Amino acid sequence: MVTSLTTLPIIQQGLDTVEKMMLSQAEDYHPDLKAALSVILSSGGKRIRPTIILLIGSLLDAKFDLLIPLATSIELLHTATLIHDDLIDGSILRRGVPTLNAKWSPAATVLTGDFVFASAANMATRTNSLEVMDLFSRTLMTIVNGEVNQLFTSRCSININDYYQRIYAKTASLFETSTHAAAIISKVDEYHTELLRKFGYELGMAFQIVDDILDYVGDQTTVGKPVGGDLRQGLITLPMIYYIESNPHNSLIQTIIEGKTIHDETEIQQLVEMVAASDAMTRAQQEAENFIGRARECLLELADSPERDSLLEITQYIVSRKK
Amino acid sequence: MVTSLTTLPIIQQGLDTVEKMMLSQAEDYHPDLKAALSVILSSGGKRIRPTIILLIGSLLDAKFDLLIPLATSIELLHTATLIHDDLIDGSILRRGVPTLNAKWSPAATVLTGDFVFASAANMATRTNSLEVMDLFSRTLMTIVNGEVNQLFTSRCSININDYYQRIYAKTASLFETSTHAAAIISKVDEYHTELLRKFGYELGMAFQIVDDILDYVGDQTTVGKPVGGDLRQGLITLPMIYYIESNPHNSLIQTIIEGKTIHDETEIQQLVEMVAASDAMTRAQQEAENFIGRARECLLELADSPERDSLLEITQYIVSRKK
Repeated sequence: MVTSLTTLPIIQQGLDTVEKMMLSQAEDYHPDLKAALSVILSSGGKRIRPTIILLIGSLLDAKFDLLIPLATSIELLHTATLIHDDLIDGSILRRGVPTLNAKWSPAATVLTGDFVFASAANMATRTNSLEVMDLFSRTLMTIVNGEVNQLFTSRCSININDYYQRIYAKTASLFETSTHAAAIISKVDEYHTELLRKFGYELGMAFQIVDDILDYVGDQTTVGKPVGGDLRQGLITLPMIYYIESNPHNSLIQTIIEGKTIHDETEIQQLVEMVAASDAMTRAQQEAENFIGRARECLLELADSPERDSLLEITQYIVSRKK
Repeated sequence: MVTSLTTLPIIQQGLDTVEKMMLSQAEDYHPDLKAALSVILSSGGKRIRPTIILLIGSLLDAKFDLLIPLATSIELLHTATLIHDDLIDGSILRRGVPTLNAKWSPAATVLTGDFVFASAANMATRTNSLEVMDLFSRTLMTIVNGEVNQLFTSRCSININDYYQRIYAKTASLFETSTHAAAIISKVDEYHTELLRKFGYELGMAFQIVDDILDYVGDQTTVGKPVGGDLRQGLITLPMIYYIESNPHNSLIQTIIEGKTIHDETEIQQLVEMVAASDAMTRAQQEAENFIGRARECLLELADSPERDSLLEITQYIVSRKK
């Protein structure tokens, strides 16, 4: 089910191992946990974080027996946050496949998420690095704090700084930790460690902006969930922030500026179409490309290599993807 | 709010520091997370795990700057499991105080639990021991697996081995990890590490059996929750297992043997009273004391010291407590 983002055989082999290690986490545990994990993992996903980790580690000559647990642990952490996230949002579809939340009771969903968190933490210990463990746990604190923020505070916030903080917590923090930890495992100097941390940060910010763009213009059959989801939840993302800047007097926009969530489905569809047809989309796309530009600058400081070429292709993929 | 289980000043000081460190976890995060953590921690609890960890570490000359994070991390892990547990059970009271679940939305409760898990993991990294991190994450996997088991399989199981496995996962595993990790941090030899692991195991098993006894005979105002809670959830604990052995033909018992949960409140009260008045209580108490006896044997192999005396008192407290 995994569509590979790289054609390098050593990375593809590594990704196969990561996939098997993720699946094997529940092997000695309750059959329903095993079944749940298998359902979640089979829904695919592009495994972009493990791919980047393996590419960076391979480029920097890291030991694969430390790199594979790191990649596995980060993807498990990501998976665990998605499980709880879908429960919290009440989402019933992800990547076009019913969420665990749609099929299981909330209790079982909470516990499956907890189990995947615990396996992620356990896998992280196999990196033999307390620094990685520290990064790993702090990132989880940042992600959860961001979700609490979204739950209690950020609804309908149209402040661009709030938006950047939100997408950092939600997405860029884990990208940043992925590339930072890959550098730590590779034992490169401080300069390159910081360079790679920054690469992950810029990449993650771009990734989330593109996700937010696709929530307006994506094709439901490709993206795997209906458009307008953010707006429906009262979340104001970059395309809408730009749209509001240019069209502050529209009556629906007034409702949003007043901090109210729009519940009428016709109005939501109308707003989505207005934003999607406006120049806010080009501006948001340009902003994603600015982040990607800075990510590419980081890469260009690394040695020319097949891994670097693959990473450059991934930066291109991130801003041009349609799902 | 914390009733100290020891009078040793160095341990009391250590416990104060643990309390402050727990509270400070959400300091730099969302005010609602901070408020939630403060509510949960102010509901008290006897801090038995941190007390035991500090006593063992002090007895074995461990460094307090490793021991304090260990004690804090274990109590945070325990707290996080309680938060999700109350949500899953739908409990509205714990220690006589409304649970987070009773006051907050399920989403906020899930996220608060996740945040506390993450801070527990972060605190565990400060023990500077990958072995402790490994134990820590595996224990969480065991605890969650036990809860999944309880959710899907164990309802109404009257098998005594199932019962022991269940209370190991639920309680003894974290006691075992507490004492095992305290020994690891103290860098004692393999024999003593194993001895202390075993001490924690026996203590934890006894602790849960007594909890299960109190669910039949406890005074609601002292225990902080109504009696019969386990039975109401379809959980068959040691007192009931012994009662069934002696009274297999009672009609309500037949219902339980057939694997059905009893929902009628009058029947639950009737069963609780029958079990509470029977010799099943003495037998269960005796079994708790058998575990405590083995725990004491472990302690008697350690050097005579004020810490050992305190630990011996705690073993006594565990089997004689009324809440």
